[in-house]
Formats: sequence, C-alpha cells, structure tokens
Amino acid sequence: MRAVTFQAPGVVSVEDRPEPELLDASDAIVRVEATGVCGSDLHIYHGRVQIEAGFTIGHEYVGTVLAAGDAVTRVAPGDRVLGCFQTACGSCWFCRRGLFHRCLHSRTFGHGATLGSLQGTQAEMALIPNADLVLRKVPDGMSSDVALFAGDVMGTGFHAVKDSQMQLGDVVAVLGLGPVGLCAAQVALAAGASKVFAIDTVAERLDVARAFGAEPVHLTEEDPKAAVSSATEGRGADVTIDAVGDPRALETAIRLTRACGSVQCIGVYAERTEVHMGLLWLKAITLRGGQANVIAHVDPVLAMLAAGRVDPSLLVTRHMALDDAAEAYAAYDRREALKIILTP
Amino acid sequence: MRAVTFQAPGVVSVEDRPEPELLDASDAIVRVEATGVCGSDLHIYHGRVQIEAGFTIGHEYVGTVLAAGDAVTRVAPGDRVLGCFQTACGSCWFCRRGLFHRCLHSRTFGHGATLGSLQGTQAEMALIPNADLVLRKVPDGMSSDVALFAGDVMGTGFHAVKDSQMQLGDVVAVLGLGPVGLCAAQVALAAGASKVFAIDTVAERLDVARAFGAEPVHLTEEDPKAAVSSATEGRGADVTIDAVGDPRALETAIRLTRACGSVQCIGVYAERTEVHMGLLWLKAITLRGGQANVIAHVDPVLAMLAAGRVDPSLLVTRHMALDDAAEAYAAYDRREALKIILTP
Amino acid sequence: MRAVTFQAPGVVSVEDRPEPELLDASDAIVRVEATGVCGSDLHIYHGRVQIEAGFTIGHEYVGTVLAAGDAVTRVAPGDRVLGCFQTACGSCWFCRRGLFHRCLHSRTFGHGATLGSLQGTQAEMALIPNADLVLRKVPDGMSSDVALFAGDVMGTGFHAVKDSQMQLGDVVAVLGLGPVGLCAAQVALAAGASKVFAIDTVAERLDVARAFGAEPVHLTEEDPKAAVSSATEGRGADVTIDAVGDPRALETAIRLTRACGSVQCIGVYAERTEVHMGLLWLKAITLRGGQANVIAHVDPVLAMLAAGRVDPSLLVTRHMALDDAAEAYAAYDRREALKIILTP
Amino acid sequence: MRAVTFQAPGVVSVEDRPEPELLDASDAIVRVEATGVCGSDLHIYHGRVQIEAGFTIGHEYVGTVLAAGDAVTRVAPGDRVLGCFQTACGSCWFCRRGLFHRCLHSRTFGHGATLGSLQGTQAEMALIPNADLVLRKVPDGMSSDVALFAGDVMGTGFHAVKDSQMQLGDVVAVLGLGPVGLCAAQVALAAGASKVFAIDTVAERLDVARAFGAEPVHLTEEDPKAAVSSATEGRGADVTIDAVGDPRALETAIRLTRACGSVQCIGVYAERTEVHMGLLWLKAITLRGGQANVIAHVDPVLAMLAAGRVDPSLLVTRHMALDDAAEAYAAYDRREALKIILTP
Repeated sequence: MRAVTFQAPGVVSVEDRPEPELLDASDAIVRVEATGVCGSDLHIYHGRVQIEAGFTIGHEYVGTVLAAGDAVTRVAPGDRVLGCFQTACGSCWFCRRGLFHRCLHSRTFGHGATLGSLQGTQAEMALIPNADLVLRKVPDGMSSDVALFAGDVMGTGFHAVKDSQMQLGDVVAVLGLGPVGLCAAQVALAAGASKVFAIDTVAERLDVARAFGAEPVHLTEEDPKAAVSSATEGRGADVTIDAVGDPRALETAIRLTRACGSVQCIGVYAERTEVHMGLLWLKAITLRGGQANVIAHVDPVLAMLAAGRVDPSLLVTRHMALDDAAEAYAAYDRREALKIILTP
Repeated sequence: MRAVTFQAPGVVSVEDRPEPELLDASDAIVRVEATGVCGSDLHIYHGRVQIEAGFTIGHEYVGTVLAAGDAVTRVAPGDRVLGCFQTACGSCWFCRRGLFHRCLHSRTFGHGATLGSLQGTQAEMALIPNADLVLRKVPDGMSSDVALFAGDVMGTGFHAVKDSQMQLGDVVAVLGLGPVGLCAAQVALAAGASKVFAIDTVAERLDVARAFGAEPVHLTEEDPKAAVSSATEGRGADVTIDAVGDPRALETAIRLTRACGSVQCIGVYAERTEVHMGLLWLKAITLRGGQANVIAHVDPVLAMLAAGRVDPSLLVTRHMALDDAAEAYAAYDRREALKIILTP
Repeated sequence: MRAVTFQAPGVVSVEDRPEPELLDASDAIVRVEATGVCGSDLHIYHGRVQIEAGFTIGHEYVGTVLAAGDAVTRVAPGDRVLGCFQTACGSCWFCRRGLFHRCLHSRTFGHGATLGSLQGTQAEMALIPNADLVLRKVPDGMSSDVALFAGDVMGTGFHAVKDSQMQLGDVVAVLGLGPVGLCAAQVALAAGASKVFAIDTVAERLDVARAFGAEPVHLTEEDPKAAVSSATEGRGADVTIDAVGDPRALETAIRLTRACGSVQCIGVYAERTEVHMGLLWLKAITLRGGQANVIAHVDPVLAMLAAGRVDPSLLVTRHMALDDAAEAYAAYDRREALKIILTP
Repeated sequence: MRAVTFQAPGVVSVEDRPEPELLDASDAIVRVEATGVCGSDLHIYHGRVQIEAGFTIGHEYVGTVLAAGDAVTRVAPGDRVLGCFQTACGSCWFCRRGLFHRCLHSRTFGHGATLGSLQGTQAEMALIPNADLVLRKVPDGMSSDVALFAGDVMGTGFHAVKDSQMQLGDVVAVLGLGPVGLCAAQVALAAGASKVFAIDTVAERLDVARAFGAEPVHLTEEDPKAAVSSATEGRGADVTIDAVGDPRALETAIRLTRACGSVQCIGVYAERTEVHMGLLWLKAITLRGGQANVIAHVDPVLAMLAAGRVDPSLLVTRHMALDDAAEAYAAYDRREALKIILTP
C-alpha cells in the first residue's frame, strides 16, 4: 500500500509499504478515506521529534474497518469510523482513573519508536490497537472533514475548555488562533461562555474567529487587556487558553486573567522558561497544561459535532491526494492552510 | 402609589399604598418600570400560600434606583436595575458558602409574613433590602422584557442546569414547558448539551421549544423514552429536569435518565409522595431539588442574556398596565400567556 | 475442589466442583485463602435473589494467583491478591467514564445467571475474569482479615463517603451499623469529618462505633435529631449515610440532614416507597444511592487500610472452616457475627 | 492602651495608643487575650513590606468582645472570640463567590496603608470591621494557643490541602516545615492522605512532623524523590505542597509530583522566576498558588481543632508578655521558636 513516510528533516515521501495485519485480538485494521496533516506533523517535518527514516507518519484519520480481532466488540468490519491520535490500555493506574492520555502503555500513531512504534495513518490502511477504546463509529451523514477532527484537534480544543473548568457565562480569552485555538474558541462558546476573545496577529485567522461568533482582537494592533477588562468590570478573563506555548504567551495569559481564574496551556511547552510566579501567586491563578485526553472526550466531541454546536469544517482550507504529500507538507509549512486533508 | 394587593383567593386589586422609605443603610428604593406575573403569584392567587389581605404582591421587577442608603455601594440613584426575587444577608452560615437561597435571614418579595413581610414589586415603587446583593445594573440596551427574567425565571432555569452538573455534550430531557422549563431548556442548549428533549402536552409550548433549537416531544402522543433512548444508544438522558413537580413527572424522570445520571427537580414538591426508590437506587441516579439560588446566578445569567445566548423575550406573550392587574391574573390563571408583564 | 453452593432457600452445602480453567487471555485463577460471608449472601440464603441450585456462592476473597492468561500484566502466578466483588470490561461507555459498577458487561461473583453466571469465591479456587481490573496485590504484611474488606465492604463504605461529597470538617450521621455502616463511619472519620454520629439500636454495634471514635447514638432511646442539631447550631448533618435501605431510615435521614446537605443511600432499595419529597425539596437536599464502584475505589481503600487509617479487623468476629459453611450461614442469619471469614 | 508598633526595619516597640472606637455599625472591639507573632510579621520586621512607622502590627488574635455595632448579629459583648487575619465586605463580586481572600474591599490587620490601614492586633484591644464575617466564637474549652491558629496559620494549611483537591488515600509531599507546612501536613493526614512526606532540613521540624504521623524526609541527607516513588509504584506524589516559596522548591515540587497531579504553592512568590514548564506540561500538572481564603475555611478549621483532628499546640514553643515584643521579634527572627504567643 501507499504511505507517507518521514525521510529526513524537510523531506517526506510516499512509498510502498506492506499492508498491516492483525497482531492482537483487540486490534482492528482500517482502510483510510481521509487523513489530516497536523501541527504535530510539522514538528516531525522540522526534525524536532526523533523518528526513524522510512516510518509512516500521520495520526488523524477517518475510514472503514476492514478487519477486527476477536476481542473487538464495539466496531465491526464495514463500519465507518474515526480514531483517536493515540491508544490506551484501559486497565493501568491512569486508565482506571480515566486519564487515558497518561496511559502507561499508550502509543501515538506516526511518531516512531519514541512514542510506541506505531505506524501512522497517512496511508491507505492503518493498524489500530485496542480498537474498542480508540475507534468510534462516524455518526450518520457526517463528512470526513468534520469527523477527522474528533480524534485530535477538536478533542484538544475540547480538552482545553473542559480542563480549565470554565463555567457558564464566563469570559474567555484564547491566545493563538491555529486550528487548536480556533477549536477551543468554538468549544468555549458552545459551553456557554458569554464572550470569547480570540487573539492573534493574522487577519485571516481573526476573520475565521469572527465568523463563528468570537470577538477577534489583534494582539499588537489592539489592546487585548483593555478589551478583556472592559468586558469584566476590570477583573480580567475568567479563563485564558494559551494555544501558543511560548513564554510571552504565558505572560500575556497571566496578565489577562482575573484573580482566582484559570490559565490553560494547551500549546506545548518543552523547556524551562521564565514565569511571572509573583503575579500568578498574587492573583491566585490556577495554571494547567498538557496534552489532551482525547479518548476521554471523543464521545461528547462527536455528539457536539453531530449536533452542529461546533463546526471545524471552515478550518479545512485544502484537500489533496495522499500521493501529493510532499507538496502538502511544504504548503503547510508555509502556513498556506489551517488544515490540509489527504485522500488516499 | 398604586400597588397590586392580594385580597382573597381569586381576588387581587390595585390600591393606593404609602410610598416606601429607606429603613436601613443597605436599603434602596426602586421606581418600577416593569414587573412580571409569575407562576408563584398564582399560588398566592389560588390561596395556597398564606398571605395577609392587602399585602402587595409580585417579585419580578426592573426599574430605576430612586434612593439608596449610605452603605449601598454597587448601585446609585439613577441606575437602571433589575432585582432578585428574594434577599440574603451575606454573612450567615449559608451565605458564607454562597447558598444565598438558604440564607437564615432571607425575605421574599410579595409573600407576606411567612416569607419575611417584604412588600411586593407589582407597584410603582419597591423597597429593596441589602441592595448590593439583590440588585444589578441592567446592561446597556437590554429591554425590560429580557432583564426581568434574570432575577427569577431565567435564574431558576439556570439553576436547574448548573445544579444538575450537566456536562458538555450531554443529552438532556426537560419535563414541563412552562416558563421555567423553557428557560432551563435554553440554558441547557447554551451550556453545550448536544440535544435537549423538551417534553409537554401543549402544542404551543412545544412550538416555542422547537423555535430555539430543542427537540419537542409530546408526552402522550409520542414516546419520550424511545426518543431519548435512540439518541443515547439506549442509555437514557444524562440529565432530566423535572419542571413540573408531580409524582408522575418524577417517575417519568427516573425512567428517562441513564444509570449514574441526574434528575433535577426544579418543579415544586410540597408533600410526601411515592417514589420509585428501587429504580433510582438500581440506576444510581442523583436526585436534587429545591428553589433556585438566584442571587448566586444573576451575574452569569445577565452575561448570557446580554450576549444573546439565551433569550426569554419569546416567552413574554402579553403586556398590560399595572392598573389592569385583576384582569392579568385572571388571564394568567386561564393559561392565556406564558408571561405577562405589567407596566405601572 | 470444595465449594459452597446454594441449594434452596435456607440451604447451602459444600460440594465437589471441577477446578476452574483459564477461558480468556485476561483471566486469572486464584487459590482462595480466605473468603467472607456477606450481607448480600444472606439475600441469596433467604431466597430473595434468583440463583440456580448448585451454583457456587461468595464474592469476598483473598488468595494466591495460580495461573494467568497472556494478556494479564498486573498480577502473576505466586502473587498474593485480593479481588473486587464484580468484574468490568474496561472499555464500554460506563467503564470509559470510570463507572465500573455500571459496566455493560459486568459480572458479579456468586450470583448466578442473573448477574453474569460467574461462580463464587467460597471455594478452594476461583476464576477471575479481567484480572488486571479486578485483582490487586495484597500490600506486604496485611492480614487476609483486613485485605478481604477492600474488594467489597470497605469499598462500599468508602463509596458512601466519596459519593456523598463530604467535605473536611463536616458533621456526618450514619444510620445503621452493620458492616457497611461501620466501615462508612470509619471512612468518614478518616476523611476529616469533625464528628460522626453512628446510629443504631444494637448496643454491641454502638460499642464498636465508639471504639473507633464515632459518637454512638441509640436510635430510639436517645434523640438523634437533637444530637445532630446540637453539634451544628441547629442546622443538621452535612451528610447522612443511610446504611439501612428502608423508608423509615430514609425519612430519618432527610430529617437529620441540613439544608443543601446530602443523603447517601448505600443501603439497598428495591421498590417504590413513600418519600418526603416536600421536605427534601424544601431543604434542597441531594439524594444519591446505588451500589458501590468498588473497582474505582480499591486502590485508595488499600492505601488507607495499609496506613491503618481505617481498620475493619474489629468487625471480623468469627473464623470458620469452609467445610462448615452451612453452620456459618445459619449463624450469620441469626446475627451472631458482624463478619464471618471462611478458610478453605 | 499598649500596642506593638513597627518603627523601622529590625525595630518594633511597645507604645501607648488610643483605644479603638466603633466606627461602623458592623464593627466590633475585642480585648486581646493572646496574639501571635507570624512569619508575615517577620516580612514587616525585615522591611520587605512597606508600612508606616508607628503602625500597630499583628494579625493573629483571641480575645473577648467589648463592644459591637448595631448591625453585628453573630457575636456579642462578652463572647470569647478568635478572628481572621483579614476582613471582607461580603457583597462584592469575589465575596459573592466565596472568594473572600480576593474581596475588593479587604483589609489586613497590621499591614499599614498598603493593605487597608487597619491597626494590628498585637495590642490590648483591636477594632474588627465586619465582625460577623471576621470573628467566630471560640468553642468551649479551647485554649487560646489552639484557637489563635484558626484565623491564620491552620487556615492556611487547610487552604493548601483543600485547594489542591487532595483525594482520600492520596500520597502527599509537603516541602518546608515552618508552621504553615506543618499545619498543611496535619490537615492532609486529617483529610485522609494515606501517607504524608514532610520534607525539610531542620531536624527539630522533622521530629515535630514525625510526632503527629507524617513521614519525615531530610531534603538533602535523604532522597525525597526515591521516598515518594517507592510509596507510589514510581508515579510520584498525588499532591505536593510547596510551603517554601522559592524556585528550587518549585522545581523539586514539580519533580516529586505524578502525572496529572497537583502542586500547591502556599509559600509566597513575589517575582518572575524560572519554572520547568516543559516538565510541568509533559506531566500535565496543575499548579495553584496564592494566599489562603481563611474566612471561607474558619468554620471547618474550628470544627477540626475542636475535635482534635488537627492540633497546632505543639507548634507553640514560647509564650511572652506583649511588653516583651521587641525581644520576641528578635528571637523569632533567630528562628528560636515555631510560634511565639504574646499576652497583653
């Protein structure tokens, strides 16, 4: 079968690979109908994630079950399904507490030996371990452009809002309007935020945010703190979602947030960095971060997608053939699209 | 000044009453611009609530501050305000925990000696104790038809959803589409329910529910259990809101709700009644009830009203003059309106 | 092997049964070292639970792993283990939310075809499905008298307290001092209740409660409401745990509990019954019930047992040989013991 | 009356000051029977807090109500009371949410103009604004050595545990065994932690921790990470309380804490500092900090003190006369005592 493989920083290529086979009674094999290119894929593309040359990449996918092991009970061959970007065992200490993103045996699709040696989904077929936890049936009538978000980007936006403990009527600020930030802003509105300030420097992204009901604020040409203050009698945002992952974003987030509010870092931090702990402490802000618990969220995310309460389809700005993956990665790297979907 | 007074079961009349005066440093006096007739007023009208003849009734109100005591800091003369249906002291054991609805010194407007001897708001003016807790400024540009709901009916719908601990993506069933049930259904949608089944027997009410995005289900001509089941893979509703307050409604609520779900009784129960404890226990359902904590909710409710996330204006089906209160009560008793607003 | 089997109401006998064999890769087989007789076993003994003649009963157990399937990773042959009274699949809708007690595929040991046809543990050996979720290693040095409680009775007491959302410093009332009530009282104290009123009519049980620090109150010879009131400035208990499961207990629980408090029904309800909904509503009490989620709780329960924060060993009032099971059931039925442990 | 006043860094003196008078209907005046010297007082003593020369300092106190304004209803002249270290208005946005520590009108005793110009309690008498919120009656038979902790140090330890959302059975690490750290360790045990590691470098403090049941660990001579790991199958502490307030403590806290655990900074941070955001993010740790909400906690804290579940009396290592305040401050500065109590 055809598969998109990492070769070297800046180089991906489409190659022939052996078709996957069931290895365990809980496995399934999915014929891929659509697979996304994601910001995390760019980390690999940039060589910032260690991965073996020739490894199949990709972790967003919609498709049809071709085969399933004996222990799989929730999906069956012929089912149209979407999947989560990582697996979980379902029985370790973390899984038993519903913290599937911290599963001691978790594997991430398309990230090489570091994250469990699980071949990616930018391919004609993919092997899905522990299919009962990882896969869900696509609701009737849902396009792959929408369904594909449930197992990664929208699940991550959902996580940001849920984990922040946002309350009905809250004022929310979202820093960074990449796909995750835009999805988080949508979820915040759907969850009953009275106002969502969507903050970025890119006009097109601010326009997308405006289109679904957020209040766009240009980070440098406008004054985000003044905007948030005037909506909150000077208190600041109840919740700020940092979808950037950068010390300046964190500093801004702490400044925008009210006393006893929450800063939710869904953007990735990987190093030591300076944090204004004095201000954070004085304001008694709660700071949370980390990867999304997509397996825990995929059911309600799908329900909200099916009901149209959130709609990521406006983020899909380009469709390409799987065979054009090299060009797709290059275009995504040039930020020419919010989301590119590849079709095998 | 003119005021609507209870005289006897089935008899209210508009009479002259002395204008209120500040009695305490935390009091305010409000000139009423709009005041609602509520289901609770009907309980008085029907003689089911003990109240003195000649007592001024009513507890929903929007108006302008005429005077405020020295200790009042959050509103000032000239401010356009709305108020909550009851007062709270702010310092007793319950208030310190934010349980203002259980304040040991709470008084309810227009309910006679039983609930604190506080004259009602269906009058040209009203005395508002502890104004800093009870009043809020009306957001710019908000009509009195909308603002009036914040301190009572929408606050009650909000309470039903909030107290039920409804989660993003939940499927919710609302039993009984009077004003409170309709507001609860709106809040559930605004809070991110993926689907809200609105259940009643009155076609007009089902139509209103459909108009704002709920799924109307006729209680007897359709099959609510089947509807809820089919949306939840047979599990049942995550949350059921009983806005009726009747043993049959409670039985239905328990039957509609999934294992480990919640039944929220916002409809009033006043007596011993048969409950299917066996089914409730088997399903491990959480049952909650009681009056709404409107003072705790009024800020987020106003924020959501101002943002248009909930909109009760479609429930206001009639406006009348305060002097026509007798006719208004009679019409409301004949169920000719969902909400009547009186203008002094 | 020898096993205790149900024959007819009032009749159990010890018979030879085939040794269990691994049926699934996630199974384990345990050689039983100690197995308890529980109140639920009495329901079977009294014929109130439908169960086939000849079925092996019992569901509390400590022992040693003899064999484990290939998919079992958390225990291994030779490990000394205790187990939960029921199984869970780990991947259904409820399991994914940590609601293992509502698992769609759950089976209960020793309860016949109704609850999954899983042979009981009052035997020399037992087959344990999904061993990774159901079994835990016994902490070093813990006696079987203590460990055996983790998978059932102490887990149930723990559930009562946890599910009630008891807070640090709360005043708690426990109605009914059978093993579950006594364990719940211990957990409430360990969880930081400032006072636990332990209410019953049996002097011996009140003495046990006093021994571990609860305040014993005789239900009829003393005045439980007065006792609770005087400890709470008249408010009532923050949490009342009904460990009886009887309409009068529920009525008492509602009366003892403060406004906005919790009534937790860990005692079993199986039928329709009269409930003072008026009082429950007026006081805005939260009512919760249902079976315990023992699989979710077994880790912290074991940690607290190991640390000595709770200690059920004083409830073990008799040890007998498995072969004397008929006599053990008769004695337990005569309430001659709080807990009888059988040794194969 | 005699009062301890700040004069200059390193200089406090006892001077005559006018007796306080009621200024507002919600005020009370308390004759002080015991008043503590606290770590925060040392900040003033060291000149790190801006405060006017001649200002009366101190904020921990037990005494008797001498006079109370008309609006005070919860305490009366003659009542023996203790008080919180700060006041709250009870009606601002934060107070209405129970966030009394963030009250927009809060004043702190003995901290000069910066924190509300409220004279301190290291004096014969003190003026207490909003007495209904700030004061509580001392439970019968409670010594001033114990009661004095409720309004400050034990309230702060309680806050650390409560805010961290510690769960029954958790393993907790406490960094820094000053009075607040020791109180936090006591509260964690009382709240059902299965194990509390108490970490410091001072042998005497480790001994105190051992005396009430914590596991003492020397920060440098032993290996805190190994100790915590071995108690948690390598996961790390569920909750780590940083009672130091120092970048190295924070780094240690993040290292000691398990994935998805909590780090609670009750020690004060005042500046920008380097934080290992990469590790915090990777482990999805929740970081919370800030001053304690003592007014919210004082009721349960008193209940736990009265029940003996926590006992700070072993921290009171010296009693002195108010007139010897200069010597007391010097001794406290030399760390010769965990807590010094002054008697007017």
